[in-house]
Amino acid sequence: MYTDLTGEALLEFTSAVREPEDFDEFWAETITRARAAAAPVVVERVGAGLATIDVFDVTFTGFDGQPVRAWLRAPAGAAAPLPTVVEFIGYGGGRGRPTENLYWASAGFAHLYMDTRGQGSSWSRGDTADPVGAGPHYPGFLTRGIESPESLYYVRLITDAVRAVDTAAELPIVDPERIAVFGISQGGGVAIAAASLHEGVKAAAPCVPFLCDIERAAGITDAYPYREVADYLAVHRDGVENVLRSLSYIDGVTFAKRAAVPARFSAALMDAICPPSTIAAARNAWAGPTELAIWRFNGHEGGGPVDAEEAAAFFRHTLT
Amino acid sequence: MYTDLTGEALLEFTSAVREPEDFDEFWAETITRARAAAAPVVVERVGAGLATIDVFDVTFTGFDGQPVRAWLRAPAGAAAPLPTVVEFIGYGGGRGRPTENLYWASAGFAHLYMDTRGQGSSWSRGDTADPVGAGPHYPGFLTRGIESPESLYYVRLITDAVRAVDTAAELPIVDPERIAVFGISQGGGVAIAAASLHEGVKAAAPCVPFLCDIERAAGITDAYPYREVADYLAVHRDGVENVLRSLSYIDGVTFAKRAAVPARFSAALMDAICPPSTIAAARNAWAGPTELAIWRFNGHEGGGPVDAEEAAAFFRHTLT
Amino acid sequence: MYTDLTGEALLEFTSAVREPEDFDEFWAETITRARAAAAPVVVERVGAGLATIDVFDVTFTGFDGQPVRAWLRAPAGAAAPLPTVVEFIGYGGGRGRPTENLYWASAGFAHLYMDTRGQGSSWSRGDTADPVGAGPHYPGFLTRGIESPESLYYVRLITDAVRAVDTAAELPIVDPERIAVFGISQGGGVAIAAASLHEGVKAAAPCVPFLCDIERAAGITDAYPYREVADYLAVHRDGVENVLRSLSYIDGVTFAKRAAVPARFSAALMDAICPPSTIAAARNAWAGPTELAIWRFNGHEGGGPVDAEEAAAFFRHTLT
Amino acid sequence: MYTDLTGEALLEFTSAVREPEDFDEFWAETITRARAAAAPVVVERVGAGLATIDVFDVTFTGFDGQPVRAWLRAPAGAAAPLPTVVEFIGYGGGRGRPTENLYWASAGFAHLYMDTRGQGSSWSRGDTADPVGAGPHYPGFLTRGIESPESLYYVRLITDAVRAVDTAAELPIVDPERIAVFGISQGGGVAIAAASLHEGVKAAAPCVPFLCDIERAAGITDAYPYREVADYLAVHRDGVENVLRSLSYIDGVTFAKRAAVPARFSAALMDAICPPSTIAAARNAWAGPTELAIWRFNGHEGGGPVDAEEAAAFFRHTLT
Amino acid sequence: MYTDLTGEALLEFTSAVREPEDFDEFWAETITRARAAAAPVVVERVGAGLATIDVFDVTFTGFDGQPVRAWLRAPAGAAAPLPTVVEFIGYGGGRGRPTENLYWASAGFAHLYMDTRGQGSSWSRGDTADPVGAGPHYPGFLTRGIESPESLYYVRLITDAVRAVDTAAELPIVDPERIAVFGISQGGGVAIAAASLHEGVKAAAPCVPFLCDIERAAGITDAYPYREVADYLAVHRDGVENVLRSLSYIDGVTFAKRAAVPARFSAALMDAICPPSTIAAARNAWAGPTELAIWRFNGHEGGGPVDAEEAAAFFRHTLT
Amino acid sequence: MYTDLTGEALLEFTSAVREPEDFDEFWAETITRARAAAAPVVVERVGAGLATIDVFDVTFTGFDGQPVRAWLRAPAGAAAPLPTVVEFIGYGGGRGRPTENLYWASAGFAHLYMDTRGQGSSWSRGDTADPVGAGPHYPGFLTRGIESPESLYYVRLITDAVRAVDTAAELPIVDPERIAVFGISQGGGVAIAAASLHEGVKAAAPCVPFLCDIERAAGITDAYPYREVADYLAVHRDGVENVLRSLSYIDGVTFAKRAAVPARFSAALMDAICPPSTIAAARNAWAGPTELAIWRFNGHEGGGPVDAEEAAAFFRHTLT
Repeated sequence: MYTDLTGEALLEFTSAVREPEDFDEFWAETITRARAAAAPVVVERVGAGLATIDVFDVTFTGFDGQPVRAWLRAPAGAAAPLPTVVEFIGYGGGRGRPTENLYWASAGFAHLYMDTRGQGSSWSRGDTADPVGAGPHYPGFLTRGIESPESLYYVRLITDAVRAVDTAAELPIVDPERIAVFGISQGGGVAIAAASLHEGVKAAAPCVPFLCDIERAAGITDAYPYREVADYLAVHRDGVENVLRSLSYIDGVTFAKRAAVPARFSAALMDAICPPSTIAAARNAWAGPTELAIWRFNGHEGGGPVDAEEAAAFFRHTLT
Repeated sequence: MYTDLTGEALLEFTSAVREPEDFDEFWAETITRARAAAAPVVVERVGAGLATIDVFDVTFTGFDGQPVRAWLRAPAGAAAPLPTVVEFIGYGGGRGRPTENLYWASAGFAHLYMDTRGQGSSWSRGDTADPVGAGPHYPGFLTRGIESPESLYYVRLITDAVRAVDTAAELPIVDPERIAVFGISQGGGVAIAAASLHEGVKAAAPCVPFLCDIERAAGITDAYPYREVADYLAVHRDGVENVLRSLSYIDGVTFAKRAAVPARFSAALMDAICPPSTIAAARNAWAGPTELAIWRFNGHEGGGPVDAEEAAAFFRHTLT
Repeated sequence: MYTDLTGEALLEFTSAVREPEDFDEFWAETITRARAAAAPVVVERVGAGLATIDVFDVTFTGFDGQPVRAWLRAPAGAAAPLPTVVEFIGYGGGRGRPTENLYWASAGFAHLYMDTRGQGSSWSRGDTADPVGAGPHYPGFLTRGIESPESLYYVRLITDAVRAVDTAAELPIVDPERIAVFGISQGGGVAIAAASLHEGVKAAAPCVPFLCDIERAAGITDAYPYREVADYLAVHRDGVENVLRSLSYIDGVTFAKRAAVPARFSAALMDAICPPSTIAAARNAWAGPTELAIWRFNGHEGGGPVDAEEAAAFFRHTLT
Repeated sequence: MYTDLTGEALLEFTSAVREPEDFDEFWAETITRARAAAAPVVVERVGAGLATIDVFDVTFTGFDGQPVRAWLRAPAGAAAPLPTVVEFIGYGGGRGRPTENLYWASAGFAHLYMDTRGQGSSWSRGDTADPVGAGPHYPGFLTRGIESPESLYYVRLITDAVRAVDTAAELPIVDPERIAVFGISQGGGVAIAAASLHEGVKAAAPCVPFLCDIERAAGITDAYPYREVADYLAVHRDGVENVLRSLSYIDGVTFAKRAAVPARFSAALMDAICPPSTIAAARNAWAGPTELAIWRFNGHEGGGPVDAEEAAAFFRHTLT
Repeated sequence: MYTDLTGEALLEFTSAVREPEDFDEFWAETITRARAAAAPVVVERVGAGLATIDVFDVTFTGFDGQPVRAWLRAPAGAAAPLPTVVEFIGYGGGRGRPTENLYWASAGFAHLYMDTRGQGSSWSRGDTADPVGAGPHYPGFLTRGIESPESLYYVRLITDAVRAVDTAAELPIVDPERIAVFGISQGGGVAIAAASLHEGVKAAAPCVPFLCDIERAAGITDAYPYREVADYLAVHRDGVENVLRSLSYIDGVTFAKRAAVPARFSAALMDAICPPSTIAAARNAWAGPTELAIWRFNGHEGGGPVDAEEAAAFFRHTLT
Repeated sequence: MYTDLTGEALLEFTSAVREPEDFDEFWAETITRARAAAAPVVVERVGAGLATIDVFDVTFTGFDGQPVRAWLRAPAGAAAPLPTVVEFIGYGGGRGRPTENLYWASAGFAHLYMDTRGQGSSWSRGDTADPVGAGPHYPGFLTRGIESPESLYYVRLITDAVRAVDTAAELPIVDPERIAVFGISQGGGVAIAAASLHEGVKAAAPCVPFLCDIERAAGITDAYPYREVADYLAVHRDGVENVLRSLSYIDGVTFAKRAAVPARFSAALMDAICPPSTIAAARNAWAGPTELAIWRFNGHEGGGPVDAEEAAAFFRHTLT
């Protein structure tokens, strides 16, 4: 069943999200602080039993210098420098096993697959802590630290993502002029932010991205994780304005207005988790050139492997 | 539908939980550290619009000196010292509004209602942060910090509870010789721990308590929050032994063996959330005298208001 | 997820409910008959173990002289006469235990908490029979006696409510010039009717009220209890007009047109049980001054304790 | 999935239900009173547009002389007297339309299809009121009047059933020596009672019957309507013994011990609504000769049309 | 809850379904081929134990000469020729037992109840194979053979239906000038097609018909079986246009434009399985005179027995 | 929650499945017939955009010479012959995109990933038709053709699997002395059969396999696809013995008794889809050496990527 706008109404949808006055300063300071606290990257080869792909365990420093893990995969013995995809992971998942997620390296890219702090226990395992505590929050990650942008979990995660791009650019196997970001759902939302915040990103492919027009999403879907906002505010009834203000610092629509590189979005008309109008809001606000794949009969799985293949083609075309 | 053992099988059930060798040391050190880091209690009167009850906003220091909130309620203008109930809250809830939970003070007790760190966003609001970060965990609180007892969320919460009893004993309105602990579900599990760890507790009434024989519970129920353990271990497949070891430091059965004061338990035969055999395991292991109310046709609501009334009668009888 | 109208559309919504020509006569006769059959009120003190509140078991006569139970609670030893809240209960519940629902008396009001005939077995216990039989009906109360207004269950319940106000006005502890009605959900719908039908009511605070624009509600929500209407009519296919006519005698919108005292309503935008437009229909039709609290991220729990606190403030301000 | 006992354990299962000392007296008096209050049967031909079957609208008097409706169907123009099936209906249903339930008359029987008082609004329509009120009860029929056997809804329904057999025996089309009772689920439970209480019944075919070993059923299934007992007792916690005593007056196992005519039972191993062991309990206690059809892969639909066909063959064989 | 359009919007709804250019040719050829492959009908009397109705087991040849089963029922010993109803069955069901579905014959019609190839295993048993294989498809029947109209399951089923009318016209008991088609849900959709494709059909009564404006239905409901289309296309992402083209060969709206006999439709406003607008689309496109019964408070059960009675009255009036 | 046996009871569980007398003949004939009808394999290179892996589209002939598709993947430019894994797919899925399932080739194996006839439309796409029709069946594949072993869908699928091993052995990249079979769920059940029926298989790793002790499974779980058996038999009540006989020709326990190569099984204690005792039944009956990985806190996902890694290690060790 279609869950949201379709046809022309979808293609033309714009949303007027709250934009904090100090949005750019806030992010500039946050990232500056993370870079100032940075420690050297650690890269260790992993014996994953793979003949065609080399896998490395990467530890870099993200928000406030806190350690973040990633897998780096590349075609075995490939000659550097390679076009590179930095990928962010969907809600609840972690970087998994070295033997998983072989597509990008098999396709000839260097692939930095960033772990998600604190997550990695719902559907694929993670190895990165979120060493920062939180005020009262609904179980889940969207309301963690929601009392201010300074304490917001997603500010830390997005900062990690920016630092992952920094890290990629330093790796010998990576061609720093050919870095793209990719992600599905939460990973897509984080990719939008990274593409907006980091000049080193040359292309982006957010698939069915989360974190776009969050205020609208909280009103039009009952599905988690957007529903965490309503669950939290159902109890913290006097926190509505403050919470919506906090969330406005991580909204994909506001990031999109500041993103100039080519982007390929995807959205699915039967998606109840990331309603297509919220994705269209980000895509339609994007400052650079965009494509939008609309999956008419899909839910949140969107284009699945086809989204990845089309993103690969898009990156091959764009990263030149 | 009965969810577990009934009749004699229930009354005689014993379980052989893992008991860490350093259980007593671990807790002695943890509590010593918290007390060493303690700051003075802050008590402020709250204007709640109540004629018959005085309400105070209490801030004390719990685990590692971290601030914890509570409401103190007492009959308006009552002459100190009063028999006192320290109550811990069920999973997901917080201390709520000053105008809620008026039973114990109306019944003539001083009532210290401790907020639950980090929670308080699912069904009643909380005001206490959990300022400690965590490794990868399943959304929820049972797997937070589960990689070691040192980092385990529930170690912090139980330490807060011990400190809440310390705090109660210092309050002028409280008769330090007549302090009891009470709690439902998670609150009951925490009450068991507090009664075991703190000599100042003179009676306990855990109602349908959580956190008892956690390993068994994780195998016999699909209901949350016990199910968080299985969800986490489904992803962290190599963590089984380590996780079960961590959890053994907070198991109510092990605390029960060390608890000598009179206790009134309740369990419900149709409870899928805290299966009655896990509660019987704690009750049957309890070192002091016990009573057990079995609610034959109830689920996790157990005896509801009757459990509270019977606990009050039990405390009146015991705290003398 | 928002379940219904929002924003201006909600605030301006009006509905043209069916209004029976003999609506006023019908109710005048029904109430006259109940008063004619009235027997003296019986009030007995209850030993509830409460230090700060006196509780009395009240038996008065409602519809056709049938006995109805209530708890009367007041601050222990308070000097009469007190401002008074007559409260009606949500669907399925009964007056519960003497030890429950202590807010209003703790806040300094006399509180008459009327039992709901025949109910009181779903979430809190009741002690009042509905001694009147019924034709075929869907399990539940909304279709009981639905073949005519004369036999309709809710006519009996509303008549009980009017008689509860009569009763309150006679009690020595009550100031008959300062009586307000309060209720949540079904209790809110009954409170609207009582405020409309009884001149002794000086203020009303229906929270997320049921029984408003029932015909509309039956079409726009799948949630019970409104859904009982559709379930019944799905089987009694030829009964549509007759049933909608019966229900028009208890519709809150029609009562609202006849209610002149100040009222504070609440509605919740994510409420699927009592959709906010049906509540706005009653509020917008109300003949007296009104306030409307809109809970943006709440479901049927609405404002919860905050609704009660704000109603108390509203009553303190209004009942002068 | 098998929901209960299977194989030998099922075939040999016996249950020790509570048997009230005054069970026989209670029923003798109840039925005597109903017969004393009886009014003449009214039979009116109905124009149902059927060529092969005559349908009559029958009104007889049941419990306490209260009117009960039924459809009488017989092969068009059949020569009296006919073997006759008196059928009772499943939970929630009513006698439906004259054009429904044509099997028994098409098969050559006179068929008296008794309406169920108060029901007939969930899946097929009814036309019979239950003119007796009730104390607090859970929505539904199993807890209506549950405070005593005298007020119990099912005592009225079973008395109606006995009176339906009285009525059948008086009808000219019926051969009073060849009357059988039939029913599915609730109808089966009522058929057991009627066969036990009325000497005019010569055979019985209860299919997946309800109302057998109710106390056991309330503990081993979560499905409605048995679950109404637990829902009621979850709130009326002090009513357990009284409620189980009331229900013991209508238990099919106790009726079965007093039933001497041949009976064909059916039970289904995947039935969660009427667990097979409760049916086996009644069948194994039956005083007369019995057959038991076990449907291995069916739920509560049991044998469906095959149960009816086999019951017809059983009746043809038995009613001679 | 209303699931779709209501009121005037429903009555005036038209939809522009895809209409293949070769629609008429396609069907002419398909039916010609089936008739060319036809074998003689086999009719055998069945001993069903029914006194008032004769039942015959009919085997005729449908699509491509493949055998199809049916029950023929007629009033016992009725004088030919009779007005006749050819009925098609709802999704998942089969022709059931000889003893079921007695209404039409009891009402004086000859009744040919066609089995549904391959189905007959979900809620009533069938005896007819679908001897044609299929490409990859979602479990269920709507996507079977969906890669082309030639391979589409429903083309076979509709062809069977046309052949069932051929067959009826040959049976001695049938008056070939008084043949009507009837069906509920899938049976209604097939009845529309048969009435459109076969000149021998003189009246049609599709109740809550399936297979109308399938493309719209796939977008506006989540309920099965329409949802099979979305489930299939979610995986076969590149098949959208091809699949919608295949389905356009069996769309009831396109058949309706070619149907000239009187028709009585029914639709239900709370039907999520066959949304009322899709039915209105077919009815509003119907070339002949129509009636439309709207069941305001029903789901997919629609008018149930009343739909059948009204269809019988409609047929008696029309078949003259 | 544990769904079945645990601990020693699981490790020692044996089941006495029905074993048809002509089991071996039946399979010998079926496979001989398929080989007799075989056509040459077609292998075409696919441009999948992968740098490290070569992908080929393979079409071979399976049951009765019908075409079956597969993907052959191998490390790009690897020197033949390679150890080879023939993999079968889980229920509902198809061979997917060339870019998916890269693990085995990345790990240095040749990987023949056989499409599943008729499936491939629920969670990953397939390209292989099942050109054989079926009698009445429940939507799904387990009851397709269930009226006899000759017509049974799974006989065709297993024959395809045997032919896939034939095919692998002919491919130049494959070392015919080092062929293993692998599969998860349905794929695991098919792998058991292939290892039993084909002498060319040198090792097997069935993960949480389906199709083992089907009769037991149908009684102890409600989960699909085993539940299809009960759904079918609930309607085809007289088919129980025949259906269980048909299914006995494809039971993994009977295949296991005839399988002599080393095998690594996995089972999960919280698996409701393939209950662990049914898997233990096959493993404990296996004629060759076995290992069993038990995933204590997993459901049907079992060991996920770890199962694959451990199977790879097992194959490396075994295929020498």
